[in-house]
Amino acid sequence: MARRRYPVEVRFADLDPMGHVNNVAYLVYFQETRLKLLYDALGGTLGDVNQVVVRNEVDYLKQMAFTLEPALVETWVSDIGRSSYTVEAEMRDAGGDLVARGRTVLVNLRADGSSSAPLTDGMRQSLELARDERA
Amino acid sequence: MARRRYPVEVRFADLDPMGHVNNVAYLVYFQETRLKLLYDALGGTLGDVNQVVVRNEVDYLKQMAFTLEPALVETWVSDIGRSSYTVEAEMRDAGGDLVARGRTVLVNLRADGSSSAPLTDGMRQSLELARDERA
Amino acid sequence: MARRRYPVEVRFADLDPMGHVNNVAYLVYFQETRLKLLYDALGGTLGDVNQVVVRNEVDYLKQMAFTLEPALVETWVSDIGRSSYTVEAEMRDAGGDLVARGRTVLVNLRADGSSSAPLTDGMRQSLELARDERA
Amino acid sequence: MARRRYPVEVRFADLDPMGHVNNVAYLVYFQETRLKLLYDALGGTLGDVNQVVVRNEVDYLKQMAFTLEPALVETWVSDIGRSSYTVEAEMRDAGGDLVARGRTVLVNLRADGSSSAPLTDGMRQSLELARDERA
Repeated sequence: MARRRYPVEVRFADLDPMGHVNNVAYLVYFQETRLKLLYDALGGTLGDVNQVVVRNEVDYLKQMAFTLEPALVETWVSDIGRSSYTVEAEMRDAGGDLVARGRTVLVNLRADGSSSAPLTDGMRQSLELARDERA
Repeated sequence: MARRRYPVEVRFADLDPMGHVNNVAYLVYFQETRLKLLYDALGGTLGDVNQVVVRNEVDYLKQMAFTLEPALVETWVSDIGRSSYTVEAEMRDAGGDLVARGRTVLVNLRADGSSSAPLTDGMRQSLELARDERA
Repeated sequence: MARRRYPVEVRFADLDPMGHVNNVAYLVYFQETRLKLLYDALGGTLGDVNQVVVRNEVDYLKQMAFTLEPALVETWVSDIGRSSYTVEAEMRDAGGDLVARGRTVLVNLRADGSSSAPLTDGMRQSLELARDERA
Repeated sequence: MARRRYPVEVRFADLDPMGHVNNVAYLVYFQETRLKLLYDALGGTLGDVNQVVVRNEVDYLKQMAFTLEPALVETWVSDIGRSSYTVEAEMRDAGGDLVARGRTVLVNLRADGSSSAPLTDGMRQSLELARDERA
């Protein structure tokens, strides 16, 4: 599957007093599409996933106004380590312009959440399905 | 203790494109102060609480602009039933003007969440401590 | 058109520690679908709308878990007054169960926002298009 | 003044289904404290500020549970360019543990928002008051 594309609804509640989508909301969009990417890569489940975000980066390229038409996020896995992996994303507005890029590093945890744990073979294979090169 | 007063921080993120606090944010404020009221009435814990909101009402009296000074919510329990109770709240801006009134009905649940359960004697006594007349 | 139905994406960010959609999020859903209803009733614009929410009511009927399938909100105008009107909404989960009912009263404002103003004939006609009986 | 410290209220609404503060919420905390830093550096106003966030980075060091005691954010300006500057922040939980680090790059805009504009002398002097070394 490599890169996947998901529509994203911008909410009125995501707007700031300047009438633009607030910078924080993009992390929400990337979180929602990251879950969809994982769900699709794992074959329709999120059941065993016990992971935590350890780093987020967002670059904002264009301010986005409110629109009832959905935006589009393209997202993929760019790096797979021993117990961590990186998900990247690019968001385009309804007109097709690139508005933001995101990169999130996640760490796999032991069942009790106490420390990191190597990715299981099954998880690794699923992530490979969603892997593409770095932006 | 009856009525309690808690400061509430309005966040920039709560503003809408008109520069006012969005109507949704008031439910967040009332949720936060309701938890503080319960915490104080229960003597410094929320440990055993398994309850669910079944109704919310908010009346908006004045639009509130952004301010770095906290607003103030006064809140209390107005009704205690067999398995449910009602929490009311009044919010004032930093200048002392009444901006919104809220009323929330909560139902106590069985441990497994399957259906309502009578309030325990301990919970009832705690709620009585926070009880006052209807607004 | 009378009642309209709009799909609603539940976000992971809308969940609370119990794994249910938090009671506050429903006001967001109703706000988004109210805007869509207005947009459609006004023939594809929100340009002249200068209105404010003066009351919100939500009844919660069933707890909703996270799902990647959209929920569905049916919404309509139930009352039209001189300078105010009421929008009602019913939300169903992906399985078709009724999860919440909402009612919002809005007041039309003068251009300077200083006080209420009678609904214009154009706005009234548009709202009539979206009118149905009370739930 | 250099580095400033501001208390931050964690909201129940910021929690995710694992009972931890969701990674998105930290960007809200850093946004609120960045505004306070600017407000204080500018001598009690935000009136002329027309700026936009062009990059955000957050490193998450420890998961944070809900607490009614406020967390603490220490924040400062780390770089000042011709038309942009960087704000850094460190957040500690009520127990004093470092939970997250943030870095935000902002660009000053022309009055019409069309493109970047050099920082005014007044803005530059204010930012210098809040300047400290990189973390």
